[in-house]
Amino acid sequence: MLLIKNIGTLQTPVGSFKHGGEKQGENVKLNNAALLIEGGVIKAITCDGKLPEGADKADQVIDAQGKLVTPGLIDCHTHMVFGGYRQGEIPLKLRGAGYLDILRAGGGILDTVGKTRAATEDELFEKSMGFLNEMLDLGVTTVESKSGYGLDKENELKQLRVNKRLNEAHKIDIVSTFLGAHAIPEEYKGKADEYIDMLCDELLPVIAEEKLADFVDVFCEDSVFDVPQSRKMLQAGQKLGLRARIHADEIEEIGGASLSGEVEAVSAEHLIATGETGMAAMAKGGVIADLLPATSFYLNKTFAPARRMIELGIPVAIASDFNPGSCPSLNLQLAMSMGYIKYRMTPEEVLSAVTINAACSVGMEDKIGTLEEGKQADIVIWDAPDMEMLVYRFGSNLAKTVIKNGEVVKA
Amino acid sequence: MLLIKNIGTLQTPVGSFKHGGEKQGENVKLNNAALLIEGGVIKAITCDGKLPEGADKADQVIDAQGKLVTPGLIDCHTHMVFGGYRQGEIPLKLRGAGYLDILRAGGGILDTVGKTRAATEDELFEKSMGFLNEMLDLGVTTVESKSGYGLDKENELKQLRVNKRLNEAHKIDIVSTFLGAHAIPEEYKGKADEYIDMLCDELLPVIAEEKLADFVDVFCEDSVFDVPQSRKMLQAGQKLGLRARIHADEIEEIGGASLSGEVEAVSAEHLIATGETGMAAMAKGGVIADLLPATSFYLNKTFAPARRMIELGIPVAIASDFNPGSCPSLNLQLAMSMGYIKYRMTPEEVLSAVTINAACSVGMEDKIGTLEEGKQADIVIWDAPDMEMLVYRFGSNLAKTVIKNGEVVKA
Repeated sequence: MLLIKNIGTLQTPVGSFKHGGEKQGENVKLNNAALLIEGGVIKAITCDGKLPEGADKADQVIDAQGKLVTPGLIDCHTHMVFGGYRQGEIPLKLRGAGYLDILRAGGGILDTVGKTRAATEDELFEKSMGFLNEMLDLGVTTVESKSGYGLDKENELKQLRVNKRLNEAHKIDIVSTFLGAHAIPEEYKGKADEYIDMLCDELLPVIAEEKLADFVDVFCEDSVFDVPQSRKMLQAGQKLGLRARIHADEIEEIGGASLSGEVEAVSAEHLIATGETGMAAMAKGGVIADLLPATSFYLNKTFAPARRMIELGIPVAIASDFNPGSCPSLNLQLAMSMGYIKYRMTPEEVLSAVTINAACSVGMEDKIGTLEEGKQADIVIWDAPDMEMLVYRFGSNLAKTVIKNGEVVKA
Repeated sequence: MLLIKNIGTLQTPVGSFKHGGEKQGENVKLNNAALLIEGGVIKAITCDGKLPEGADKADQVIDAQGKLVTPGLIDCHTHMVFGGYRQGEIPLKLRGAGYLDILRAGGGILDTVGKTRAATEDELFEKSMGFLNEMLDLGVTTVESKSGYGLDKENELKQLRVNKRLNEAHKIDIVSTFLGAHAIPEEYKGKADEYIDMLCDELLPVIAEEKLADFVDVFCEDSVFDVPQSRKMLQAGQKLGLRARIHADEIEEIGGASLSGEVEAVSAEHLIATGETGMAAMAKGGVIADLLPATSFYLNKTFAPARRMIELGIPVAIASDFNPGSCPSLNLQLAMSMGYIKYRMTPEEVLSAVTINAACSVGMEDKIGTLEEGKQADIVIWDAPDMEMLVYRFGSNLAKTVIKNGEVVKA
């Protein structure tokens, strides 16, 4: 049993969108609180200076020294298993090379695909373990990880097996997403339909059989996969028991957000170019918006219409989008600050975005995303008195103590 | 004697702007290099696998494992000694309150002035020591620190005495700047001229006598101090042996950059609104541009015209501007990334901006800012192969080993 006492403010969303419970930013704030944890699960929460029954039997006691305590952060959109890095493109970009120029020079996503294919499973595993260590240090306790740099049978399976090993080896829980339809590989140039068929017919059954992914995803975008191809991919996954998520409207609004509502995807992601029609479909279909502000920042793009989504009742999650091309940052705290600075979300809305809404986005809202009795004890004690401080001191890591499954993993 | 061997790339600017040596971004890159340090000073540098003469006598050896090595970072513009924090203004700001609304509600800079006046010297010292620890961990080895939250005799001196104590107590070197003319205090409302007279006649002589500041600074801006008041302040400081720097053209171009050229200030800072006339005066006067990208980011402002300045031969430095109002981030690595992402500076230009040009900006170019024989051994070994990686992986702290005055202070 672990007791956390002297919590200045315990702040948590309650319920979850999927369960009809909460509106974005409806946080509960308990003052002078305490938390009792047993067997990795939250056993009791008290406030106003009272201690939970049985607190005297705790064999480990943490004094939170009046600080803020929240649920552990959940990063619900990453591409963290990849070969190489793409910092070498910076001089080209500064000389004015566009996306296609870089691609023609063998750069861009093809570079990452080549290096991911060339890397062994062990190499990818070790590299990702390093990223997960950094994330845990930042207070992140659950991470979604997509494939999509293999783009063939062997290498997509390799990436997904790395996800599985990471989930077993690292304290952080990994949610695995199959994103074979991330790009059209060289081998299928001009044959996107055939590539989708191959993914649906040859890869999905193996993935479902070996339980290598929880989700199926597709990059629905102009010049990548269109709406019919995306629909086919997601529905094929759904038939085999995978839940759907979708990269939608990052550059052009070609109907990805509307499709997400139609197929009742769990989440739609990016959504920079999404307009009213797409948002209406998302609201109707109960789709979560996974927004990725650090990508807009890095690419000097506009920011997704977060406030309009919240107005429409669409639950907004915020994720890092960590990947070697469009967002080489894994710092979810920094993305949270951008939630305030760029999306103009309140600190309470930002907390919901990286806890309960992100939990819903990865299908784990029954276990994580709030501090409630019976939930998994994924908890952060912050070197801050309130959520305002957390979004304000951007660039500093304010995670003081991180608890995963009831175990202190950063002290 | 300390030997650093197996340096993949040793990258450093050479010479200095003030000494007519270098053009922005003219870095030297040595491969397979080694560095020998004795008595806190760089004794020898070798490359291509050779070791310096006497390397076998080193009593401490660091294997850089093929990583990048650069001079320690210099943060040449901060307001790091302050009372309180201003995260409490976030809900007001999100409800649309403007700068003046917040000021009228007792917030804004007046809140910081009140809390800085209320804090004891010891409290300010302890708080700033915490910030300096964070900075050192990020690879920052020299920091400029301004007063300007006291705004009266007693409290401006208190802030400057904290600077002096920090310089003695912390490994980081502190360059102290007197910014009494940061704002017009309540007591002098409508009497800016009288306030400037008080600063010049009553405070400057004490500061010069007690050697409490190296620089004099003024916030030259519409509704703060105009050009004649700023000129008077800077020239009064210069007469007493302080060198001049100036907050210029942050919001409106009222002539601050031109004044910096006229009085041959060492640097002009912010410069978001600076146009061709101001830049021409800076180029003519040999003034360094201290640019503060994280402030533009936090306030959602435009970014200073860095590329145009570099074209004109103005040396560009990048600093954090860490302060509780307009930039609550002390992360200079993040500001460096913004140098690439937002200013479109090359990684080499960014390195010059936080080393030699920043060293010139704080008047220490003879001692720090490059890796050259005879210079102070302020050195960072990065968890990166090149400068590109450093600006690319924004939000991660890549400082692996930090050496200050020849001593390993982060291992």
